[in-house]
Amino acid sequence: MIIIMQAHATQAQLALVLARIEALGFRHHISKGSERTIVGVIGDERPVDPEVFEVLEGVERVVRVLHSYKLASRDFHPEDRVIELANGAKLGGEEILVMAGPCAVETRDQLEAAAAAVAAAGVRVLRGGAFKPRTSPYSFQGLGEKALVMLREVADEHGMAVVTEVITPEDVPAVADHADMLQIGARNMQNYKLLSAVGEAGRPVLLKRGLGSTLEELLQAAEYVLAGGNENVALCERGIRTFETATRFTLDINAVPVLKHMTSLPVMIDPSHAVGRADFVTPVARAGIAAGADGLLVEVHPNPAEALSDGAQSLDGPAFARMMEDVRRVAEAIGRRAA
Amino acid sequence: MIIIMQAHATQAQLALVLARIEALGFRHHISKGSERTIVGVIGDERPVDPEVFEVLEGVERVVRVLHSYKLASRDFHPEDRVIELANGAKLGGEEILVMAGPCAVETRDQLEAAAAAVAAAGVRVLRGGAFKPRTSPYSFQGLGEKALVMLREVADEHGMAVVTEVITPEDVPAVADHADMLQIGARNMQNYKLLSAVGEAGRPVLLKRGLGSTLEELLQAAEYVLAGGNENVALCERGIRTFETATRFTLDINAVPVLKHMTSLPVMIDPSHAVGRADFVTPVARAGIAAGADGLLVEVHPNPAEALSDGAQSLDGPAFARMMEDVRRVAEAIGRRAA
Amino acid sequence: MIIIMQAHATQAQLALVLARIEALGFRHHISKGSERTIVGVIGDERPVDPEVFEVLEGVERVVRVLHSYKLASRDFHPEDRVIELANGAKLGGEEILVMAGPCAVETRDQLEAAAAAVAAAGVRVLRGGAFKPRTSPYSFQGLGEKALVMLREVADEHGMAVVTEVITPEDVPAVADHADMLQIGARNMQNYKLLSAVGEAGRPVLLKRGLGSTLEELLQAAEYVLAGGNENVALCERGIRTFETATRFTLDINAVPVLKHMTSLPVMIDPSHAVGRADFVTPVARAGIAAGADGLLVEVHPNPAEALSDGAQSLDGPAFARMMEDVRRVAEAIGRRAA
Amino acid sequence: MIIIMQAHATQAQLALVLARIEALGFRHHISKGSERTIVGVIGDERPVDPEVFEVLEGVERVVRVLHSYKLASRDFHPEDRVIELANGAKLGGEEILVMAGPCAVETRDQLEAAAAAVAAAGVRVLRGGAFKPRTSPYSFQGLGEKALVMLREVADEHGMAVVTEVITPEDVPAVADHADMLQIGARNMQNYKLLSAVGEAGRPVLLKRGLGSTLEELLQAAEYVLAGGNENVALCERGIRTFETATRFTLDINAVPVLKHMTSLPVMIDPSHAVGRADFVTPVARAGIAAGADGLLVEVHPNPAEALSDGAQSLDGPAFARMMEDVRRVAEAIGRRAA
Repeated sequence: MIIIMQAHATQAQLALVLARIEALGFRHHISKGSERTIVGVIGDERPVDPEVFEVLEGVERVVRVLHSYKLASRDFHPEDRVIELANGAKLGGEEILVMAGPCAVETRDQLEAAAAAVAAAGVRVLRGGAFKPRTSPYSFQGLGEKALVMLREVADEHGMAVVTEVITPEDVPAVADHADMLQIGARNMQNYKLLSAVGEAGRPVLLKRGLGSTLEELLQAAEYVLAGGNENVALCERGIRTFETATRFTLDINAVPVLKHMTSLPVMIDPSHAVGRADFVTPVARAGIAAGADGLLVEVHPNPAEALSDGAQSLDGPAFARMMEDVRRVAEAIGRRAA
Repeated sequence: MIIIMQAHATQAQLALVLARIEALGFRHHISKGSERTIVGVIGDERPVDPEVFEVLEGVERVVRVLHSYKLASRDFHPEDRVIELANGAKLGGEEILVMAGPCAVETRDQLEAAAAAVAAAGVRVLRGGAFKPRTSPYSFQGLGEKALVMLREVADEHGMAVVTEVITPEDVPAVADHADMLQIGARNMQNYKLLSAVGEAGRPVLLKRGLGSTLEELLQAAEYVLAGGNENVALCERGIRTFETATRFTLDINAVPVLKHMTSLPVMIDPSHAVGRADFVTPVARAGIAAGADGLLVEVHPNPAEALSDGAQSLDGPAFARMMEDVRRVAEAIGRRAA
Repeated sequence: MIIIMQAHATQAQLALVLARIEALGFRHHISKGSERTIVGVIGDERPVDPEVFEVLEGVERVVRVLHSYKLASRDFHPEDRVIELANGAKLGGEEILVMAGPCAVETRDQLEAAAAAVAAAGVRVLRGGAFKPRTSPYSFQGLGEKALVMLREVADEHGMAVVTEVITPEDVPAVADHADMLQIGARNMQNYKLLSAVGEAGRPVLLKRGLGSTLEELLQAAEYVLAGGNENVALCERGIRTFETATRFTLDINAVPVLKHMTSLPVMIDPSHAVGRADFVTPVARAGIAAGADGLLVEVHPNPAEALSDGAQSLDGPAFARMMEDVRRVAEAIGRRAA
Repeated sequence: MIIIMQAHATQAQLALVLARIEALGFRHHISKGSERTIVGVIGDERPVDPEVFEVLEGVERVVRVLHSYKLASRDFHPEDRVIELANGAKLGGEEILVMAGPCAVETRDQLEAAAAAVAAAGVRVLRGGAFKPRTSPYSFQGLGEKALVMLREVADEHGMAVVTEVITPEDVPAVADHADMLQIGARNMQNYKLLSAVGEAGRPVLLKRGLGSTLEELLQAAEYVLAGGNENVALCERGIRTFETATRFTLDINAVPVLKHMTSLPVMIDPSHAVGRADFVTPVARAGIAAGADGLLVEVHPNPAEALSDGAQSLDGPAFARMMEDVRRVAEAIGRRAA
């Protein structure tokens, strides 16, 4: 950590800063510049909040040298991490992994049709919502545990793994019983109780970036899961809030190479939520793969016009099959493969 | 709801739109403009997701006429709502209500000193965190139930009410046992299980705006609590995420008059989190009152330099007392009072 | 335009709205819903500001049916537009067009080395700044007309076209004398005098999106140039301002398919400014092409470590040649070609 | 400037960094931490772009110690600056200065009515647009020089000073001939040619913050004017672009105390553009004064329903008079006065 003193900071103020550094068990290093004195804090700064120095008089600013996360950093774990699901599908290796299925499980028929369509296109991981966090209390909230059972059965028919969202700590055991991968949605990225709970559940975790969260905060959220002893965490960029209103969210494509640089955890993108409209999903999916993403999360519905949620952004079976063709060609163009 | 058809939409596409409208139990009204056909959907559109029409071919755009929330709207409840806490303190009436205290309860001594300072300045509601949602898993996470007991006892010594944050549904009963008002933090604004749980807890709720959430979403979140039968919900603007990095967040001061227009629920502001630095808290607190806020939420610590969290943005006792003087004068200037 | 009246609007207020509609030469169409009256305005609304109705009492909201731009819309000009530069290079057709060169022209040697490197990699359009808009008055501001001459001469040696930025109306003739395409930078996207001036200059225009501008505003800016009689306008997404600080800007990848949908003007991306760091340029360039962009604008410097501006985001010759290889493969994967 | 080396930077990379520091005429200071080496750059870093170090291998990040502006900083000029206009009105002292008038000058009658209304309410500076930068080429663009003459004559009748916008360098002399203060609009905040031109015009300048610009960039823009020898620059916060759509822009109220801390230049707010709707102007104007702003810029129209631009956000005479009453009371509450 680097402490930049104010232009007119006194010797007494500096002395208090040095005393605080020592009290916290660090060493210090003073550098007097032409207009400011700079104090280096020497030691492992990660658990320390910069505020403990910012609050002292005479301090202008405090700059972190190290990131606040450790287990999630590429410095700590340099080689790419590969997550293997129960059915052998791998995320984070040479092959692109696509997870697809309906936004919400609505009926057995709907789920079976969606699963058949995505399986036919080569998909090995079925997604589908059982517990739906909805902005309005009057919207469809999901079928709950009934949907978990359906997901498991339908996925098994096709040899697929299941990924589904969990929205509260008390549901973690039930979801972990039926699903192969637990999804933390964007609105729960900083639900720390939930992060701790999935950290202990022994299942791979798919962590979506909050729509108002920085990449550093995403890695701090991953750190909660990793610190719980769970090494299998994948990150997913799904669009952030910006001033642009032409699309529901703005996919932060830069996040793909930046995350690959910051961490060795696998990185996915969710083009469906990022654009909010079916006809823009495929170009953005291709872009994600071209940028280096390890996987995609895509909403597919057998009949989007009848969907109970997210119909406008869901691909139907044939459109999804065409998307998969495109994704495969782009993956090969950059030296990777897609199932 | 208004459906704008594409320029070249066919008669067959229009017919399907009309059929969908009827199938949902609504009537329709067609208006042919010079370049577009517009279809009005007549009936109570609130429970309907615009997507059910957006997904149909030939539809360009769907515009809501009514907001997606009802109970929270001023149309539904025109008169200002006033929340009365257990000790008689009122929020939403003529008098400004200030809630103050430490970010986190750290020790009995710290809490007593903070409570004494804010009580001396006229404050009737003590705030303090027992369960702390922290960005990093390595930061201080709060004292939990031990802190709840301390808050209750210390508040009672001064005749103050207690407001404290609850971060997961299972903690709601314990928090409701000790506190007079349950706070939902910004990171949990869309934690719908938690919103439903506090909706049923029978205690007034302080709902903070998510840092990436629109005002409409804030009212939708309030709708969850109101729909649970709990009419005592106060809203709190605490700064949103923008591109500006000079302050931690950007206080959306426009939100105060806009919310007062949209809803009759009381509106507060939290200047401490919005600016992140003690010397900017007072001017922003004054601004909030001048804009028409019904209350303030302010972090006060007997010794900010020693705080375990949020020290940099906490006022000490004397600075807080000066802030209260300023707030009182501004309140009077606009025809209100502050305790 | 659609006018949504307030819940309790009176008959007299409605009558004034109808009178205003008629006074502006439009017809109206009234639709009474369950809770609101809706008034349709029939006629070409494009030149009308919604404010002329918003300001009337009893009006809650006004919604545009048509976009505020016309010449720039795909409705008006359905087929993709192709811009042909003086040397025969085409933008907007099947082939991807890459424009590359140094941020600023610094010396003849620097420019020649950069030009040789990009020409060797197959580039047919040389970029380079003569007039530099710099955030700080103390930064290098460009060589001005001297640089224009160098650009022309060096480009001619390689049969390349020249694109360079113009920052004030009075420089337009000089720049148009030497360059084949006039660039409007992000900070000048809403410099309407400049837009009008380049609209009349008879040279193709490269219009960069403002970093705080919506896609609709970008098309309105293009409308200024088109309305000046200049049909050769290309749009360029170069990153917008968001809360994320890991990269200098956030490339809005969604903008590519969305713009292709809204307009038939060619769409480019500038990965160099969008990420601000050389090692992230190539993945984002690939993503842009995969999303459907018609061209790229890339900063290349023979020795980035010595650049007077934008060194950190400039590729050197070998890195650029590798980027071109990647771009070619991705272009082919989606059925296009790159020189 | 502080250079943070990568975790595994080599001695050779460090040596090159040190050589670059020396080549630029600075001294260096090395501090070896537990995981990173930090290099301090000693000397006046202001004219140096951090990129000259960022681009070197082995460098992870470069942090500025000093801001990139100097003349605009409070360090350089600690006492509050006061701008005195030709009619003796002062901006930046104890008294709040309100500038008011129509968005655009439309007719002599309209201007006279607006001027009479604001003069009656105590206003000493008349605002009004002669050259209007409009988002759409089809909107009213202002009356140009004819409006300048009218502004001067009408203002003189009331002993008022004139502030009006200049949008291109070539218009600066004409505007400076008629107006007492030159306004740079938000869309031109980074039009550096224009900033330089007004820097040399010898008239006080009102510089509005760009809607996507940081406070640091605002001060850098002010630096252009100050570096031109013009010390009379006032800054104006007028709302920034955020994800919130309930208001046209989001007024950054934090900017008021933050700017007062960073600089001694006067700070104004423009509530009209920040909220975009007349009924929210007064609360936000009060908030700006309560936060410590030195002045207000307010749109007033004798008949907003007939305005050619910005009607929806314009106050009429009586509403403005009430706003002034409120503003006076709030100013007194914080120990200031308003005319």
